[in-house]
Amino acid sequence: MKVIVDFCVIPLGVELSLSPYIAECQRILDDAGLQHKLHAYGTNIEGEWDTVMEAIKRCHNRIHEMGAPRISTTLKLGTRTDREESIASKVHSVQQQLAQANG
Amino acid sequence: MKVIVDFCVIPLGVELSLSPYIAECQRILDDAGLQHKLHAYGTNIEGEWDTVMEAIKRCHNRIHEMGAPRISTTLKLGTRTDREESIASKVHSVQQQLAQANG
Amino acid sequence: MKVIVDFCVIPLGVELSLSPYIAECQRILDDAGLQHKLHAYGTNIEGEWDTVMEAIKRCHNRIHEMGAPRISTTLKLGTRTDREESIASKVHSVQQQLAQANG
Amino acid sequence: MKVIVDFCVIPLGVELSLSPYIAECQRILDDAGLQHKLHAYGTNIEGEWDTVMEAIKRCHNRIHEMGAPRISTTLKLGTRTDREESIASKVHSVQQQLAQANG
Repeated sequence: MKVIVDFCVIPLGVELSLSPYIAECQRILDDAGLQHKLHAYGTNIEGEWDTVMEAIKRCHNRIHEMGAPRISTTLKLGTRTDREESIASKVHSVQQQLAQANG
Repeated sequence: MKVIVDFCVIPLGVELSLSPYIAECQRILDDAGLQHKLHAYGTNIEGEWDTVMEAIKRCHNRIHEMGAPRISTTLKLGTRTDREESIASKVHSVQQQLAQANG
Repeated sequence: MKVIVDFCVIPLGVELSLSPYIAECQRILDDAGLQHKLHAYGTNIEGEWDTVMEAIKRCHNRIHEMGAPRISTTLKLGTRTDREESIASKVHSVQQQLAQANG
Repeated sequence: MKVIVDFCVIPLGVELSLSPYIAECQRILDDAGLQHKLHAYGTNIEGEWDTVMEAIKRCHNRIHEMGAPRISTTLKLGTRTDREESIASKVHSVQQQLAQANG
């Protein structure tokens, strides 16, 4: 089962800047061979359900190892059986709608 | 790794009432032996990371089987290494704070 | 427009225990005259859109005053035009489904 | 109070393709003069709290007018008092971390 995920991790009990933790997660997603794209409030990920979930678990373990005693993550998980979908195609669908309306 | 989860599943392309799908997920959580508690906008779940995630995957598979071509789920995932935590203890901490302030 | 909300606020840059901040938000919701119900990963709120949103803004302002330099909140917002809905009725719909299936 | 928001709206009881609704929200955000950036699972928005919240309320009203009897929206709301922040600066912080580590 393929899934499109939005992943937003918040380590607690650490310094205010979370970017070192988020950068580490980007590396974990790379190592897992997953397509992903950072935005200002999370990271879009696409891949097989188990591969994505295993990578997210690794992110939690790694952030705890980096010193965060507590983590709160928000995930959005999209699956569909009617057709294939990707990070790129989802953004493209909306852009196409906007272009048609303005065309 | 123990996790406290908030799980909110939205089947798309089905009738407006989502309660049959949510009821089915409650049964899947029961079958997995997981502690869980329904609220008006999701379900709190506590358990081992892998057990919880496996149950949530089963929910997606089952809801697709029930006829939903598309699903969007929101998860919150809380882990901590400093102490044990449960659904009951999280609610209790806040209630204790309120009782002290009013005491 | 009536809305059913799930509100989960995470103050950053403070101590690990977030219950004092969450308790303060419960008081703000009470003061606003809003129906609300705490669970282990947030608070269900029902009320008029503007009243709810004004209360949530007051929560952010108050938590900053209490010393948190940074806050990350997750909201779920449900509106519907086909029928009235409440925190109680949403939970009841699912429980009824479960009872029928077991009956 | 400035806020960075992640906004993900799901109309229910409509066709499976949600892009017409999301495109309409992009126009509403434009009309409100808000900085925003679409990603595969939502839209980042930056602006004053009241302006952003007013625009999101307009999106709900508009999507109901377009025919959706039910809407479920997920919002993330980030505020901070220690320093200014933008959609661009949040992404840049993580990219800088990654560049340093690889440098």
